[in-house]
Amino acid sequence: MSSSLGVQFRITSFGESHGPCIGVVVDGCPAGVNLAVADVQRDLDRRKAGDQPGATPRREPDAVRFLSGVFEGHTTGAPIAMVIDNVNTESTAYTRFARTPRPGHADYPASVKYNGLNDPRGGGRFSGRITAGFVMAGAVARQVLLNLGVRVDAHTVAIAGIEAPPCDAGFVHDRRQFNSLSCCDDASARLMADAIETARMQGDSVGGVVECVVLGLPPGVGEPVFAGIEGEVARAVLSIPAVKGIEFGAGFDLCRKPGSAANDPFGVDGGTIVTTKNDCGGVLGGLSTGMPLVLRAAFKPTPSIAVEQQTVDLALKTEARLTIGGRHDACIVPRAVVVVESMVCCVLCDLALQAGFIPRVV
Amino acid sequence: MSSSLGVQFRITSFGESHGPCIGVVVDGCPAGVNLAVADVQRDLDRRKAGDQPGATPRREPDAVRFLSGVFEGHTTGAPIAMVIDNVNTESTAYTRFARTPRPGHADYPASVKYNGLNDPRGGGRFSGRITAGFVMAGAVARQVLLNLGVRVDAHTVAIAGIEAPPCDAGFVHDRRQFNSLSCCDDASARLMADAIETARMQGDSVGGVVECVVLGLPPGVGEPVFAGIEGEVARAVLSIPAVKGIEFGAGFDLCRKPGSAANDPFGVDGGTIVTTKNDCGGVLGGLSTGMPLVLRAAFKPTPSIAVEQQTVDLALKTEARLTIGGRHDACIVPRAVVVVESMVCCVLCDLALQAGFIPRVV
Amino acid sequence: MSSSLGVQFRITSFGESHGPCIGVVVDGCPAGVNLAVADVQRDLDRRKAGDQPGATPRREPDAVRFLSGVFEGHTTGAPIAMVIDNVNTESTAYTRFARTPRPGHADYPASVKYNGLNDPRGGGRFSGRITAGFVMAGAVARQVLLNLGVRVDAHTVAIAGIEAPPCDAGFVHDRRQFNSLSCCDDASARLMADAIETARMQGDSVGGVVECVVLGLPPGVGEPVFAGIEGEVARAVLSIPAVKGIEFGAGFDLCRKPGSAANDPFGVDGGTIVTTKNDCGGVLGGLSTGMPLVLRAAFKPTPSIAVEQQTVDLALKTEARLTIGGRHDACIVPRAVVVVESMVCCVLCDLALQAGFIPRVV
Amino acid sequence: MSSSLGVQFRITSFGESHGPCIGVVVDGCPAGVNLAVADVQRDLDRRKAGDQPGATPRREPDAVRFLSGVFEGHTTGAPIAMVIDNVNTESTAYTRFARTPRPGHADYPASVKYNGLNDPRGGGRFSGRITAGFVMAGAVARQVLLNLGVRVDAHTVAIAGIEAPPCDAGFVHDRRQFNSLSCCDDASARLMADAIETARMQGDSVGGVVECVVLGLPPGVGEPVFAGIEGEVARAVLSIPAVKGIEFGAGFDLCRKPGSAANDPFGVDGGTIVTTKNDCGGVLGGLSTGMPLVLRAAFKPTPSIAVEQQTVDLALKTEARLTIGGRHDACIVPRAVVVVESMVCCVLCDLALQAGFIPRVV
Repeated sequence: MSSSLGVQFRITSFGESHGPCIGVVVDGCPAGVNLAVADVQRDLDRRKAGDQPGATPRREPDAVRFLSGVFEGHTTGAPIAMVIDNVNTESTAYTRFARTPRPGHADYPASVKYNGLNDPRGGGRFSGRITAGFVMAGAVARQVLLNLGVRVDAHTVAIAGIEAPPCDAGFVHDRRQFNSLSCCDDASARLMADAIETARMQGDSVGGVVECVVLGLPPGVGEPVFAGIEGEVARAVLSIPAVKGIEFGAGFDLCRKPGSAANDPFGVDGGTIVTTKNDCGGVLGGLSTGMPLVLRAAFKPTPSIAVEQQTVDLALKTEARLTIGGRHDACIVPRAVVVVESMVCCVLCDLALQAGFIPRVV
Repeated sequence: MSSSLGVQFRITSFGESHGPCIGVVVDGCPAGVNLAVADVQRDLDRRKAGDQPGATPRREPDAVRFLSGVFEGHTTGAPIAMVIDNVNTESTAYTRFARTPRPGHADYPASVKYNGLNDPRGGGRFSGRITAGFVMAGAVARQVLLNLGVRVDAHTVAIAGIEAPPCDAGFVHDRRQFNSLSCCDDASARLMADAIETARMQGDSVGGVVECVVLGLPPGVGEPVFAGIEGEVARAVLSIPAVKGIEFGAGFDLCRKPGSAANDPFGVDGGTIVTTKNDCGGVLGGLSTGMPLVLRAAFKPTPSIAVEQQTVDLALKTEARLTIGGRHDACIVPRAVVVVESMVCCVLCDLALQAGFIPRVV
Repeated sequence: MSSSLGVQFRITSFGESHGPCIGVVVDGCPAGVNLAVADVQRDLDRRKAGDQPGATPRREPDAVRFLSGVFEGHTTGAPIAMVIDNVNTESTAYTRFARTPRPGHADYPASVKYNGLNDPRGGGRFSGRITAGFVMAGAVARQVLLNLGVRVDAHTVAIAGIEAPPCDAGFVHDRRQFNSLSCCDDASARLMADAIETARMQGDSVGGVVECVVLGLPPGVGEPVFAGIEGEVARAVLSIPAVKGIEFGAGFDLCRKPGSAANDPFGVDGGTIVTTKNDCGGVLGGLSTGMPLVLRAAFKPTPSIAVEQQTVDLALKTEARLTIGGRHDACIVPRAVVVVESMVCCVLCDLALQAGFIPRVV
Repeated sequence: MSSSLGVQFRITSFGESHGPCIGVVVDGCPAGVNLAVADVQRDLDRRKAGDQPGATPRREPDAVRFLSGVFEGHTTGAPIAMVIDNVNTESTAYTRFARTPRPGHADYPASVKYNGLNDPRGGGRFSGRITAGFVMAGAVARQVLLNLGVRVDAHTVAIAGIEAPPCDAGFVHDRRQFNSLSCCDDASARLMADAIETARMQGDSVGGVVECVVLGLPPGVGEPVFAGIEGEVARAVLSIPAVKGIEFGAGFDLCRKPGSAANDPFGVDGGTIVTTKNDCGGVLGGLSTGMPLVLRAAFKPTPSIAVEQQTVDLALKTEARLTIGGRHDACIVPRAVVVVESMVCCVLCDLALQAGFIPRVV
């Protein structure tokens, strides 16, 4: 296990799906950052299963408690430990997955790696529930970034193949709040909701794409060659369960364009150096350009589905059939929007600290 | 700058495009690995500008020298430093880019970050030439992985929008050698070569996609949650200049499929647990499954093009026109194939060491 | 703040003296290690203020709770979070120390570093109470090391200038248990207890020396040049508040001997390579030799004393007088014995994992 | 092997005693630091065997070459690689030490760790010669620290049991230059030289103590709890071969004093907060106090001596006699003075960067 991420702003994740709690320790946060329970709870509530279409019937209060690092409403420079309790657990369904692994899940390689000794309940460490810890850490990073004028907002841009039309970076924050899918286009959101409901009814699931935009990032953030923005963000976002791809700016489309069309020309806008378009997604040479950072993450459909699947009996080494009970999301994309934001916040906070853009006491 | 990558197998890159040399230090390599100059030179020669269509006219011998860590034909457990000299440098063209930054290059954000003090010659640290150091390190990692029976092979799957038909993982190593584009399909390779030549004649450039397949990786490699295979590989591959996206297995296509089609069923093949298809690309929960690891990296077109472009004069804060001279690749994809392999080798060697699959003395 | 230590076995400390709790996260512990609450509680109880001469009147239950990483009595490979609650806190005495810093404490440099925003209650992060987290982590490391046959035992060898006669490494574990000072020589222990009591009566304090011996460490543990045993152990032990020096084997005495007397001759004992004496303390070139690892740590006297002291008023920049109330140890050495052991356990576990002596699943 | 040290200012050591060269890569150095070959050569020349009493007859030019990271006389923010060639090597004497290990050397544990595959020539990676790389890195750190007004000076305070009288921190830089032993007291230096010469004539060796003082360090440097100044400095200094102990301020003597005498009272001197004495050595709670940082390192006598010693034949597992030829220092302390300074410079530069005292572009 490698449960820490970051150099100057370093988060350490702990907790399992059906253990006592999910938690995180944030180390390296500057002293003097305003931080209230409500700042963290706000993001946790966006992640919490609620009225999102297809959200799991498992409901948890997810009420954050600070265990350390906050004093009189501000950070102190000390490590910040935060936890939410696991209240609503039902583990009986999971014991057999160690023997008949669920397709699309980590059951099989985990049982090999840990020789069957990992915690199987609710997927243990491999559950999407651990991303609640990512969100708690991200909420701290977000508070730090606000001091630098940086805003991080993600939204749902595709579900089940239904793609929302592009949304200007400046409008994402407001528009994604109009529906429970965090999609900036309401018409698309309705189609997406229908697709999710159809899948749910069929015991199936769907995936999608989350786009994240960052405004206010000054030029020069990133530490080439091995801690450029793209690499660091990619590692963090690909740590979110179910993410299978990431692209920046025009991404995979860029490789079909000629250089003359792919390059973003420089221009001057009110005394500020800009690019006249932003196909590079706000990153050149691993460094922020001052334009919006734009990235998209591909989420595969939830692997836990109700339809019968083919698997193997690891003990007998024979094929077997598996029907998964338990409680699952028919689509995790709407709940994952804030998780993507959180990981991006953590990485940018770390890189901004490394580059000296944020003082150690704000 | 953050010039080191890896935990147990750690590489440290140094050198600039027009400085004395390009180098790398590999620390943490197990003792007793057979390593000859030829093992490294073989990969360097694949990267070297030669008969690939559109390769830069800058020709360098790129002859590796071992400075440490190798004794009597094997590694010793000590750090391995390797360098190649920069022989063919012509720096006069570059001084003005600090003032009129090249679109698509790091010139502008780098000048902000380093206050104009970075080495501008040939792009300095931001030149693609530094990937020669990645290749030297990757060649060492490849030798280590051979002891584990792991084979890493990449190939060109798209250039300028021309996509080669899929190639079975087992055939990549042999088929990509039939042409200088490292493309497994000769007919596609010819079309790609034409597209590159057309771009070159127009003073333009093209990009493409490199796919990398890994055979022989045992199940259980990867250190969740923050050092899973996908995240670690993504960070390393996105450290290669010009890469703007990465996906694993079916990648972005996966998010359009229902879970029932996306999940890879488990099966038994000759006593071995397999998946009957491999849309997950050999990774579940950040862990290898034992199936081939498959990933694709999107390369944007070379930003250095001969056609006139719009930029700014940073001193005057006015718009300006720029025509780039110097020597550049019309398409770097064919030369980048071995660079992708190299970064994947380094990451997998590191993760296999961390997971205990490779002893510290082989 | 830098609250993590270790590479493969990595501990992350959190909590303040008067916050809700003291905790630690242990990441990288192999799966399959037997670990019960009692294994951790045993070490915590040795650290807890009790019948040790001069122990603080602040009494805490220090009952450990596992928050993650343990399932059915064994570790799972997942991060192990552990906490003890702070129950008995009385913070009113501390607010003025931010303005009139206590001599010998971190109050002054901490107020500069954090601009007065650090948590002052009970010393906050600079309190010796945070070493309870070190002990919880060390107890896990100790369980891992038992699988390798490694035993770590410390004892009090000096207090207030009273030095106990040398004790053979093999007898430390048993003999130190005969008195509450953890001193292997009972006669010395009585003199030490008297010296502590005298200091306490005078409102003063005393320091001392803790020696730690490690049996069963195989040769070849340590990762030169920058993670040799001595350097890694020193860093960890000097992280314990009040430690001002460390030496290995004959230590500072070695530098007065000629080489012919300092060198430990090699010999053979029952087929095993040994040294016929152990002035090097079981380490050569940063590597364990297979002989007992021996080190001594110097603890300064508790800086919190009841006698009036000279300090400054930071607001007025004038000299001031300070009398410290609150509850303190007249001598922390007896309670620190297990803390030294704990840090040594953590470091050796980390180095043994890095060197491949401990598998990732035991 | 773990050949890197530091977080923000990170050095990576490479090279063996009889390989092609000794080198180091410095990563994370701020851009814009003045750095000439002479700045590094100056420190290398202090380390070089020359007219110091007892210095090895092996003479090397030790002329540094910059391989990267410096442009037009200043650093660029890129990694700085530096090497010196090994010219004067004579390796025949060393092959037998793999079988009959030298007492006091790493031969035996290294042969176990690397299964006999490490480079034995001249001690390979375990040779004191690799500290030339430490010195090159330290020279860069020293240039960075000068921008912060920090001065690092070490001197010889004891050799062969001969102790020089204390020297005020402010006089060390000037006084240690009056003799080739870098001892601030000339009378002591003469006695030390005699003791070294006597040992050399007898085929024996002597050790000693180096004290290092740091002036100008602002209060608040250090990253508790695991990267406090004492711990970080100790790890770095104990990475120097032959160092067996370290203490800060009054060190081991502190543990014999009562708290009332050990504590350093605060005072005001010309508007600056000071302590009226400095028994804590300029560190409280792992943080610099603004007073001089003072530490002492104990060097054991050179283990390579000409007198016959007892060892074992590892192949036969029998006792054996060994007489070491080759070329060695009868006392390495005078040459080690600059090495201690170098490691302290590297650590303080790293911690000052982490704490935000040094900008990323100076």
